[in-house]
Amino acid sequence: MNDHGKATGAEPALRAGVIGYGYWGPNLARNFMETPGCTVIGVCDQKESNLARAKSRYPSIFTTTDSGALLAQPGINLVAISTPVSTHHKLALAALRAGKNVLVEKPLASSSTECKDLIREAESRNLLLAVDHTFVFTPAVRKIKQLIEAGELGDVTYYDSTRINLGMFQHDVNVLWDLAVHDLAILDYLFDEKPTSVSATGISHLGNDIENIAFMTLFYPTPLIAHINVNWMSPVKVRHTLIGGSRKMIVYDDIEPTEKVKIYDKGIEIADTVEGVYQLKVSYRLGDMLAPNLDLTEALKAETLHLLDCLQNHKHPLVNGKTGMRIVKILETASRSIRNMGKTERLDHTP
Amino acid sequence: MNDHGKATGAEPALRAGVIGYGYWGPNLARNFMETPGCTVIGVCDQKESNLARAKSRYPSIFTTTDSGALLAQPGINLVAISTPVSTHHKLALAALRAGKNVLVEKPLASSSTECKDLIREAESRNLLLAVDHTFVFTPAVRKIKQLIEAGELGDVTYYDSTRINLGMFQHDVNVLWDLAVHDLAILDYLFDEKPTSVSATGISHLGNDIENIAFMTLFYPTPLIAHINVNWMSPVKVRHTLIGGSRKMIVYDDIEPTEKVKIYDKGIEIADTVEGVYQLKVSYRLGDMLAPNLDLTEALKAETLHLLDCLQNHKHPLVNGKTGMRIVKILETASRSIRNMGKTERLDHTP
Amino acid sequence: MNDHGKATGAEPALRAGVIGYGYWGPNLARNFMETPGCTVIGVCDQKESNLARAKSRYPSIFTTTDSGALLAQPGINLVAISTPVSTHHKLALAALRAGKNVLVEKPLASSSTECKDLIREAESRNLLLAVDHTFVFTPAVRKIKQLIEAGELGDVTYYDSTRINLGMFQHDVNVLWDLAVHDLAILDYLFDEKPTSVSATGISHLGNDIENIAFMTLFYPTPLIAHINVNWMSPVKVRHTLIGGSRKMIVYDDIEPTEKVKIYDKGIEIADTVEGVYQLKVSYRLGDMLAPNLDLTEALKAETLHLLDCLQNHKHPLVNGKTGMRIVKILETASRSIRNMGKTERLDHTP
Amino acid sequence: MNDHGKATGAEPALRAGVIGYGYWGPNLARNFMETPGCTVIGVCDQKESNLARAKSRYPSIFTTTDSGALLAQPGINLVAISTPVSTHHKLALAALRAGKNVLVEKPLASSSTECKDLIREAESRNLLLAVDHTFVFTPAVRKIKQLIEAGELGDVTYYDSTRINLGMFQHDVNVLWDLAVHDLAILDYLFDEKPTSVSATGISHLGNDIENIAFMTLFYPTPLIAHINVNWMSPVKVRHTLIGGSRKMIVYDDIEPTEKVKIYDKGIEIADTVEGVYQLKVSYRLGDMLAPNLDLTEALKAETLHLLDCLQNHKHPLVNGKTGMRIVKILETASRSIRNMGKTERLDHTP
Repeated sequence: MNDHGKATGAEPALRAGVIGYGYWGPNLARNFMETPGCTVIGVCDQKESNLARAKSRYPSIFTTTDSGALLAQPGINLVAISTPVSTHHKLALAALRAGKNVLVEKPLASSSTECKDLIREAESRNLLLAVDHTFVFTPAVRKIKQLIEAGELGDVTYYDSTRINLGMFQHDVNVLWDLAVHDLAILDYLFDEKPTSVSATGISHLGNDIENIAFMTLFYPTPLIAHINVNWMSPVKVRHTLIGGSRKMIVYDDIEPTEKVKIYDKGIEIADTVEGVYQLKVSYRLGDMLAPNLDLTEALKAETLHLLDCLQNHKHPLVNGKTGMRIVKILETASRSIRNMGKTERLDHTP
Repeated sequence: MNDHGKATGAEPALRAGVIGYGYWGPNLARNFMETPGCTVIGVCDQKESNLARAKSRYPSIFTTTDSGALLAQPGINLVAISTPVSTHHKLALAALRAGKNVLVEKPLASSSTECKDLIREAESRNLLLAVDHTFVFTPAVRKIKQLIEAGELGDVTYYDSTRINLGMFQHDVNVLWDLAVHDLAILDYLFDEKPTSVSATGISHLGNDIENIAFMTLFYPTPLIAHINVNWMSPVKVRHTLIGGSRKMIVYDDIEPTEKVKIYDKGIEIADTVEGVYQLKVSYRLGDMLAPNLDLTEALKAETLHLLDCLQNHKHPLVNGKTGMRIVKILETASRSIRNMGKTERLDHTP
Repeated sequence: MNDHGKATGAEPALRAGVIGYGYWGPNLARNFMETPGCTVIGVCDQKESNLARAKSRYPSIFTTTDSGALLAQPGINLVAISTPVSTHHKLALAALRAGKNVLVEKPLASSSTECKDLIREAESRNLLLAVDHTFVFTPAVRKIKQLIEAGELGDVTYYDSTRINLGMFQHDVNVLWDLAVHDLAILDYLFDEKPTSVSATGISHLGNDIENIAFMTLFYPTPLIAHINVNWMSPVKVRHTLIGGSRKMIVYDDIEPTEKVKIYDKGIEIADTVEGVYQLKVSYRLGDMLAPNLDLTEALKAETLHLLDCLQNHKHPLVNGKTGMRIVKILETASRSIRNMGKTERLDHTP
Repeated sequence: MNDHGKATGAEPALRAGVIGYGYWGPNLARNFMETPGCTVIGVCDQKESNLARAKSRYPSIFTTTDSGALLAQPGINLVAISTPVSTHHKLALAALRAGKNVLVEKPLASSSTECKDLIREAESRNLLLAVDHTFVFTPAVRKIKQLIEAGELGDVTYYDSTRINLGMFQHDVNVLWDLAVHDLAILDYLFDEKPTSVSATGISHLGNDIENIAFMTLFYPTPLIAHINVNWMSPVKVRHTLIGGSRKMIVYDDIEPTEKVKIYDKGIEIADTVEGVYQLKVSYRLGDMLAPNLDLTEALKAETLHLLDCLQNHKHPLVNGKTGMRIVKILETASRSIRNMGKTERLDHTP
C-alpha cells in the first residue's frame, strides 16, 4: 500500500476507491494520494484508457472496469463516485450496501426521490454520505461566509451569479444541473434561510430537450432574491457573482487569479422621514474597496481533510445527503418551471 | 439667432425647444447647438438653477419655467422632451397640438395606451414623433446590426445583457423602465422578429413598490431567447451583452473605451447523424477573436443628423412612435409578470 | 462681463486671458468660466477657426489672433499659455512684462536657461508664475501623497511608470517632454528628495531627431529608483505606475474609471541575521488590497481654485517656476543622456 | 522500465536523468514521463524530501543525492539540469564528459566563458547541448514569429517588455538573469539580427549586490530598440510585451488565459514630402484588432518533442549552446552596464 511517508504500520484512515476517472476523478485521486492519512486503493472506469492513465500515475493501485469488483475490495472504506449524474443513484446505493462510506460528485442524484433513498440507506447503515460540492471549500466562499456571519454586509439583499462558458455539454442533464448547481450549493452554505419558490426560463438549441441556456430566480422568505444565469454556449468564460447587502456589497469573480473577492463599502441610504415612502429620498454612499488576502489551499484538499476528520471522529459531513437533496429539489423544481415558461413553483423542503 | 457660421440668411432646418434641462437635456441642447443645420431656440425647466446653467452656456436662448410659453414660440419646429416618464404623455401631446414635431426621451410614455394616443395625434397632424433610444445610434450597435445582416453570426440563438450600477433611482418607474429599456430598443433594432411573450422577476428593497432589481426573459417565435438583468444596487457598473449565433458570437462591452465589440469565431457543432438527437455528439470550434474598429461619432450626434434628415426630407424617423410603443408594451407586460412572480405573459403587438 | 451669478458689483478675482485654444486651452477656459470667482476675458489663437469655437461657446469674450492685443487688455490679471513648448518663453516673458500673472502649460519652457529667465522676471515684478502640471491636482496623486506622508508605504523603494499611447506627436519636443513630464511632476510633488542623476535611452522612427520612444532612470540619494517608459507608438493606451515601499506598495492605474489607486499590503522580509547578507533569507508577506474611494473633482478645477487662492491671498503657487525649472532640467539632461546612449548625467539642482 | 504503452521491446529514444527536483525539475520529469518515446530513468537532488516526492510520483525511477551516481547510469542518454545557475557549468561539464546529451535550465551558465567551455566540450564529443528557454516553445511566441516572418508587422520598430512579480528571489544571480533572460531568448528567436550594445540600470534593496529591479535597453543595427523591465518586488504580476511594427503592432500578455496575442492594425503614417523631415506630418491609422486562436500545447511538451526529434534524427536543437551563450553574453554585459549606471556597453558576438 502507498503510504506516503506515514509512520510505518499506521494504516491511512481514508482509503478510497474512485469510480469514474474521466474529468474530475483524477483530481479526487490526486488529493487522496497526496493528503497525509489518505490513500487510493483502487480506481474503476469503463474505459481501459482511463485506467491506464491512472495506473501509470499510481502503479500501486488496483484498477478495474467492474464497479462490483471495486466495491468488493475490503481495504476501501470510502467510495468516491465521479460518473454521469444518471448513474449516481445506482452506484452510490451499491456502495452503501457494500458497507462503504460514499462521496458523490455533484449533484447527488437525478431526482429528490433518489436522494431520499440514498439518505435513508446511509442513515440505516450509519455510513457517511457526502456530496462533492467543492465550491463550499474554496477560500473565496469561506471568506464570504465569514463576512456575512460577522455582519459586514448587513442584511443580504441579493445574490446574482453569471456562470457561463463554451461547453462542456452534458448528455443526461441540462445546464442548471451542470452549472447552477454550484450556486445552489454556495447559497445553501451561505444562508441559513432556504428559498421558498423558484422561477426559471431556458432554451435548448441542440435538438434535444436539454436546455443549454437557463436563468433562475429564487425567492426567499425575507427580502432576499437570488438569480443565476448559466450558459454552455458563451464564447467567454465568466464566473461573476454579486452579493448585495444593506451595509456592504461583494463582487466575487472566480476567474481572477488572486483578488477573487472584493468588498465594496457602497450602498444606498433611504431617508427615514414620514414621506419617505412616497417622496423617495435615496442617496448613495461611496467608500473604499477591499480585496482580502485569500489563502491558497486547493478546495479539494480542504474537502479531503474534512472527510478525513469526519471518518476519524465520526462527524457529520458539512455537505451531506440532506444538503445534496435540497439542491436537487431546487434543480428538479426549476426544470419544471422552465417547462412552464417561468411560472413560479413552490419549493417544499420537508423531507 | 445663433447660427454657428451657417451661410447668412439660411435658417437652421432643426430649431429645437428643449423641455427638461436636468441630466440628459444638456446633451440634447449641446448636440442641437453644435450640429450644422440645427439650433436651440429655447429651454424650459421647472428649476431656475437649471435655466441659469443653460443661459450661461447659450446666452442667445429663450428660457422659461412654463412649457406653454415654450410651445408658443413660433420659431421652434422640434420639441425635445427630457423629463420624468410620467410627464411625457401630457407634454408630448401639448407639443403635437401646438404643431411641433416631437422627440421624447425614452421610454415614450407610461403605458401603451398613452403611446397609442401620441402616435394617433402625430399621424393626424402629419408631425414627426421620435423616441430618443440613443443606443440605436451608437457605432457599436450599428456594427452589430451590420454583422447580423451580413450573416456573420449565422442564426442568432440568444441575447443576454447585464446592465447594472449603483443608482440612479427613478421615482416613477422601476428599473426595467430605466435600464432594460435600452436592451429592448437594441433588440427591436437588431431583429425583425418581435418577442411573443415575457417572463420577469424582481424585487423592491426601497419600501415602495418600485423594483430596483429585475430579470426579464423574452421568448421569440424562433429558437432565440433574450435575457436582461438590471439592477440599481450593484457596487460596480456593468454593461455586458452576449449575442450568440450559430456561426459566430459577440461580446459587446459598453464599458470598454475602444474595443466595445468582440466577435468570436467560436461555436459548437452537432453531429448530423441519425442518432444525433439521442446520442448527442457535440464538438467545439475555437477560432480567432476580432474587435472591429468603431467610428467615434457620439450617438446623439448621429441621432441629431438623422432627425435633421427626417425634417428636411420628410422621412419617417428610425425610432418612431411605433417603436416606442412596442417597447413600452414589453415594459408594462414585464411589470405585470413580476407581480405574478415570473408567470409568462403574452405580448400582443397588434396596434 | 460674464459674472456667473457672482454678487453684483464684485469683480472676479481671477480674470484670465487664454493664449492657445487648441487641445488644452478649451479645458482651461471652461474651468475659468465655471469656477466662482474666476472668468475669462479674452482668448488668443492663431487660427480663426479656434477663435470661432471659443466665441460660439462664450459669446461675451474678446478674441484675437494677436497676443499683444490680448496682453494689452487691462481687465486680464492672469494669462494662461497653452501653446507649443517652443513658444512658452517668449509669450510668458511678454505677459510678465505686461504685468500679468502667468500660468504656463507644461513643461515651463524649452530649456532651464529659459526657465531661469522667467523665474527672475516674475520675481522682480512680484508676479505669480505657475506651471500647469495638472496631475499634481488629481485626487489619485493627492491620495498617494497622503499615504506616503502618513508612512503607510514605509520607505519608498521605487517608482515605475508606463505612459504610452498612439500619438499625439509633438513637432518641437520629444516624447519625454510630452509624456515623461507628467511623471517628473508627480515625483517632484511626492518626494522631498530630488534625483541626483539620470540615464535615458530612446529612438526616433520619424526621420527627424525627435525620439518617439524613450526610457528614463532617475537615481536618488537614498535607495530609491525611478523609471519612466514613454511611447507615442503604442497600439494601446497605458497609464500604469507602481510605487514600491518597504511596508506597502501602490498600483496607480489612471485608465481605471474609479479604482485608480490600489494599496497592496505586500512585501518582502529580509531576515536580520549575521549571515543575512551572504545567506539571503527572503520571505514574502501577502496581505489585503485596498482601493480607497477617491473624490471626483476634476484636477483642473482644484488647480483653478488653488490659483484663485494664490491671487486672493498672495500665496506662492504649489507648482511654481522653480518646480517647472527642476523638471525642465531633468528633461534636458535626459535628452542629453539619450544622445549618449544611456550614459548617466548628473543633475545639478542649484539655481 | 516505465514504457507507457510503447510497443513492447522498443526502448524510449529519450531516457532522461533529471538533476534538481525543486521548482522546475518536476515539470521536466512530468513531460519526459508523459511524452511517448521519452522516459525518466533517474532523479538526483540534494534534498531527500525532493527525492521522496519524485519517488512517490514515479515509483519506478532511480533516485540519488549524488550526481555522479546518476551520470554513471548507462541507461540515461539525456541529462536535464535544473539547479541554481552557479552550478550549471560544473554539472553540465560532468554530464558531457560522462557521454550524456545535456539540457540545461536557463540561463546556460554564469558567464560566457563557461558557456564557451560547454559548447566546445559538446562539439568535441558530438553531443547535444540544449538550453531550456521554454518561452521559445510557447504557442504565443511561435505565433508572433510566424506573423513577423509573414511580414504582417512590416518593419519591427520596438520590443518593450514588462516582466514583474513578487519574488522569487535568486541567491546567485540578479533579476536580469532570472526574468530578463526570457525576453532575451524571445528576442533571439524572433529576430535574425542581434543587438550591438546594451544599456542597463538597476538597484538592490536587499543589502547585497544582487539587483532586484532592473531596466535594460538593447540597441540594434536597424532602427529597432528593445527594452526590458524586470522586478522582483512588484505587488502584481505583469507579463506584458509590446511589439511595434510599421504595419501592425502586437500586444502579448502572457497573463491572459486565452487571448494572449492581440494584433492591432494601427500605426502612424508619415507624409512623404520634401519638407517631410522639417514639417512633420504624422497621421494615425486605426483599424481592427485580431486575437488569433492559439493552440493549447504546453510549451515544455513541444520542447520535449523537439529534443526527441533531435536525438532520433541527429538534428541540432533550436535553442542550443550558441543561443545560450549569446544570451549569457548580454546578461553579463548588462550587469556591467548597471555597475556603470547605464553606460552603454558594446556586445561582441564573435565566438
